[in-house]
Amino acid sequence: MLAGLLIAGCASTADKGDTKGAGTKRSNARPFDGTKIVQIAIVVRDVEKYAKSYAEFFGMDVPQIIVSETEDKAKTRYLGRTTKARVKQAFFRFDNVTLELLEPVGGPSTWKEFLDSNGEGVHHIAFEIKGMDDRIAQMQDRGASLIQEGRWTSYTGGRYAYFDSNAQLAVMIELLENF
Amino acid sequence: MLAGLLIAGCASTADKGDTKGAGTKRSNARPFDGTKIVQIAIVVRDVEKYAKSYAEFFGMDVPQIIVSETEDKAKTRYLGRTTKARVKQAFFRFDNVTLELLEPVGGPSTWKEFLDSNGEGVHHIAFEIKGMDDRIAQMQDRGASLIQEGRWTSYTGGRYAYFDSNAQLAVMIELLENF
Repeated sequence: MLAGLLIAGCASTADKGDTKGAGTKRSNARPFDGTKIVQIAIVVRDVEKYAKSYAEFFGMDVPQIIVSETEDKAKTRYLGRTTKARVKQAFFRFDNVTLELLEPVGGPSTWKEFLDSNGEGVHHIAFEIKGMDDRIAQMQDRGASLIQEGRWTSYTGGRYAYFDSNAQLAVMIELLENF
Repeated sequence: MLAGLLIAGCASTADKGDTKGAGTKRSNARPFDGTKIVQIAIVVRDVEKYAKSYAEFFGMDVPQIIVSETEDKAKTRYLGRTTKARVKQAFFRFDNVTLELLEPVGGPSTWKEFLDSNGEGVHHIAFEIKGMDDRIAQMQDRGASLIQEGRWTSYTGGRYAYFDSNAQLAVMIELLENF
């Protein structure tokens, strides 16, 4: 609420010009510089049902349902172990951010764990980044542990990582890197 | 995940040019034309604690905590009744969307109900709109009932409305109008 207060009430980014004497510490202090919120992801039990419902609600076309790649390509790891988990996805792109529907299938995953524990709802907020390995280290420096990671090879290819940032942010963060 | 698939996988808006014979029905079919996702709102138990934690995590300044106005100005209604509910807020603005922290105080509200039922987490996604009365009718046409509404008088002033869109979208929607 209170959109009228945004300009006065929101946080401004700290001065990026003052980097003297900071080095790595300064870099670590701002892991989200140059990044952007690109997706809000909602876990559901039946992606086909919600894809139709979203399309009707928002007056959009029903999108293609996409199934994530198999273990050999996706290289999915959940809680440090390989998993055969996959996910069925539907995307609804608005002007500035995309709503993503996720239905977990197959083995254990953060998507299935969330659905079993919390039911349907917002699973994470995704930031697009560059330099995944450095970003993972920066997230871990903040106490946000890596809980799932994987890749995709279609289109440009890319890599994703989910972090348990609930203690710090009361929501899960995903980092996405397009190759 | 799968940011690389967005272009292929996302929904495109239907042809806006084809309005023949549609009239009101066509208008109702697209309540989100010309709107934008402006906020992702997260309900928390202690907004001061999370405001500091967000600032540290994202490398931003700690924002001012804003308390919503009293009942005489806010005219808050929850489930059809007036309420003395207020909310403490902190805003973190990213390039394209704002993360909003909400701590309910006072009387009954959707914020408090969510916290009591679900714990901390994403409470709603906010769309900025024009013409609230028409938009409320359009939401209700889709079966999304109005559960809370209110106003703010500071800055430009404005009006907000929350809808139970869980059955349709698995997430709550807020409409915001700046006057």
